[in-house]
Amino acid sequence: MAPTDICRKDSFFLPEGMIYLDGNSLGPLPKAVSKRVANTIEEQWGKSLIGGWNSCGWMDQPSTLGDRVGRLIGAPEGSTVMGDTLSIKVYQAVASALDMRPQRKVILSDTGNFPTDLYMAKGLIDSLDQDHELRVVEPDAIAEAIDETVAIVMLTHVDYRTGRMHDMGAITKAAHAAGAVMIWDLAHSAGAVPVDLAGCACEFAVGCTYKYLNGGPGAPAFIYARPDIAPTLRPALAGWLGHDAPFAFDLDYRPAPGIDRMRVGTPPVLQMASLEAAMDVWDGVNMDNLRAASIELSETFIAEVERRCPHLTLESPREPSLRGSQVSFSFQHGYAAMQAVIARGVIGDFRAPNIMRFGFTPLYIDKQDVLKAVAIIEDVMSNRLWDDPKYQKKGRVT
Amino acid sequence: MAPTDICRKDSFFLPEGMIYLDGNSLGPLPKAVSKRVANTIEEQWGKSLIGGWNSCGWMDQPSTLGDRVGRLIGAPEGSTVMGDTLSIKVYQAVASALDMRPQRKVILSDTGNFPTDLYMAKGLIDSLDQDHELRVVEPDAIAEAIDETVAIVMLTHVDYRTGRMHDMGAITKAAHAAGAVMIWDLAHSAGAVPVDLAGCACEFAVGCTYKYLNGGPGAPAFIYARPDIAPTLRPALAGWLGHDAPFAFDLDYRPAPGIDRMRVGTPPVLQMASLEAAMDVWDGVNMDNLRAASIELSETFIAEVERRCPHLTLESPREPSLRGSQVSFSFQHGYAAMQAVIARGVIGDFRAPNIMRFGFTPLYIDKQDVLKAVAIIEDVMSNRLWDDPKYQKKGRVT
Repeated sequence: MAPTDICRKDSFFLPEGMIYLDGNSLGPLPKAVSKRVANTIEEQWGKSLIGGWNSCGWMDQPSTLGDRVGRLIGAPEGSTVMGDTLSIKVYQAVASALDMRPQRKVILSDTGNFPTDLYMAKGLIDSLDQDHELRVVEPDAIAEAIDETVAIVMLTHVDYRTGRMHDMGAITKAAHAAGAVMIWDLAHSAGAVPVDLAGCACEFAVGCTYKYLNGGPGAPAFIYARPDIAPTLRPALAGWLGHDAPFAFDLDYRPAPGIDRMRVGTPPVLQMASLEAAMDVWDGVNMDNLRAASIELSETFIAEVERRCPHLTLESPREPSLRGSQVSFSFQHGYAAMQAVIARGVIGDFRAPNIMRFGFTPLYIDKQDVLKAVAIIEDVMSNRLWDDPKYQKKGRVT
Repeated sequence: MAPTDICRKDSFFLPEGMIYLDGNSLGPLPKAVSKRVANTIEEQWGKSLIGGWNSCGWMDQPSTLGDRVGRLIGAPEGSTVMGDTLSIKVYQAVASALDMRPQRKVILSDTGNFPTDLYMAKGLIDSLDQDHELRVVEPDAIAEAIDETVAIVMLTHVDYRTGRMHDMGAITKAAHAAGAVMIWDLAHSAGAVPVDLAGCACEFAVGCTYKYLNGGPGAPAFIYARPDIAPTLRPALAGWLGHDAPFAFDLDYRPAPGIDRMRVGTPPVLQMASLEAAMDVWDGVNMDNLRAASIELSETFIAEVERRCPHLTLESPREPSLRGSQVSFSFQHGYAAMQAVIARGVIGDFRAPNIMRFGFTPLYIDKQDVLKAVAIIEDVMSNRLWDDPKYQKKGRVT
């Protein structure tokens, strides 16, 4: 299956002259978003006002959009719900998972996890007592670190810096064999690689929708809980919209039957509308085809960069099946080099200390884009454009 | 000061023929929102993509908007930050407050609190141990229930059903005299009544921005912490954007110096843009003038309803200084009567078991609106329009 079969460039607004290899950080604007959000503002909020919660379906968006995201990650209907931010969803998953293993005190994670996942878990256990431990090992030491003291194995599937991808099935199996609960963060997986949540049988998955799913800056996060456990979970964040009957205004909390108990407060209706338009682009996308296209793009990129830019060292796994949909190279002057590349219209990003990171998103990036990007990177590298003082680091780096 | 002096009807989209007395639930659409959000989508997200986080000021919005909301509630600059939902902000305040009083085990609240505040506090203490207690008393029993076992007094300033308003200064003083930490929920206060957070010296305040502030459905919440304690708070929700250096991607959490540590995850940029346009309407609004106008409107409403609708019983305090900016009447067939009123273009809402609730928002409601609304309510009541089967309750009520 050629990448062009999956390509839907016409569905996106892509600035003239820009090759956007940062969709792993913030996806570009789907063309349908603007009108959808305007309609939500002018026709729904403007004309229905408070009535919009029922008549415009605002209250159901977290569930209906959850199912649409769920389709891309192998989650059955009714097992995924949208809301809040990824940090909050991590907290909910960890809190519920700890509650499932009250006798165990270790949360196991790795140094490849995105920092906020570690911060949120640590913040939670610091609230609890002095008995819990967040144990952080190197990514390749995870398998052997899983033992019967571990309550939770919490990992990000695809490493945000290197693109290294964990074997979701094998690690989940090992976690379960040791009696641990498995939480996967799919921030760099949802819409990037095929994910089979039902097949892997992990208890929880969380992720965001502003990267590969193109939901927009600050788009809501998602949380999945395995359908058999969802009705038994004790929500730590017991918000009214996770109540079985929010509009009864009972003084006591009674969780909704299933995954809806992971809802917390009022959903961000405008962000949901944006995400809804973004999800329309995913209708009919086959994730296996997308993955094949992504691999073809990243293999081309790696081969061409290695051939033409000897200063750059591949930091991502060479074997495509061990990578997500991004490729990272290290370079001593990586920060300045990336600024020079960006100044020439190829948008990637930099992660300390020396990582130049490029995301491949077959919905709107094709092989011609990759070849043009490599030509620009080669120009920057061969001509030492990173030496220009204007590209040197100053202040905050995002 | 006459209500007309504060009236800014021209700044809002108000559907023809509708008198909207539900701005205490969801404010109407400020006219500037649509263009502002479209600009954020098309010009900022569309053209700057990932660069928008810095070049378009997205990352600073939670603080700059926090200060603008802060002005209306007597919070000094740099003490208020936006994000998440009110439920989450309640959780953060309660968790930090408990941490300030480790020897005390009681959270004191009242039955007039909005349920999610109680749920969130209960969810938190249920995670901790079996020692903590959420003690809920009647609103007028709060003062005498404050004793030296109380860690936190947590109250909603204005009761969502009756509009009854607590004496913020006196209760805060009593809480402090007993050594307790004070948390105020300003959901029905911000933009409704003058609030002097600095003067009352409470430790925390939280609130939402989709009611009187007109930020739109799902607009972000706010949290205030008293400036002297903000640098000492331990955030339970230790998200990366509350980190001192989020983009250093350290494995260990180190909180930002002040209130920024109450930020959690990626801010909802589209909702922030909407709120920003909504806050422009508040520029130059004097809260004392607004309060005078609000009292004039609600006094007129009460007097006229009592004179013309003998079936309705006032449930709000009669004394204006003890009320927020809403008025509630009880009526046995209140649900059906409210549906009949709404069908005639006067939008209020119903709260179980028998409350008909009306909000007064002088930015876009004037005395003529109030008189017209009363005439419609009188018509419904005098002609027993609530008897019509089509207005009887079925299914979910929001």
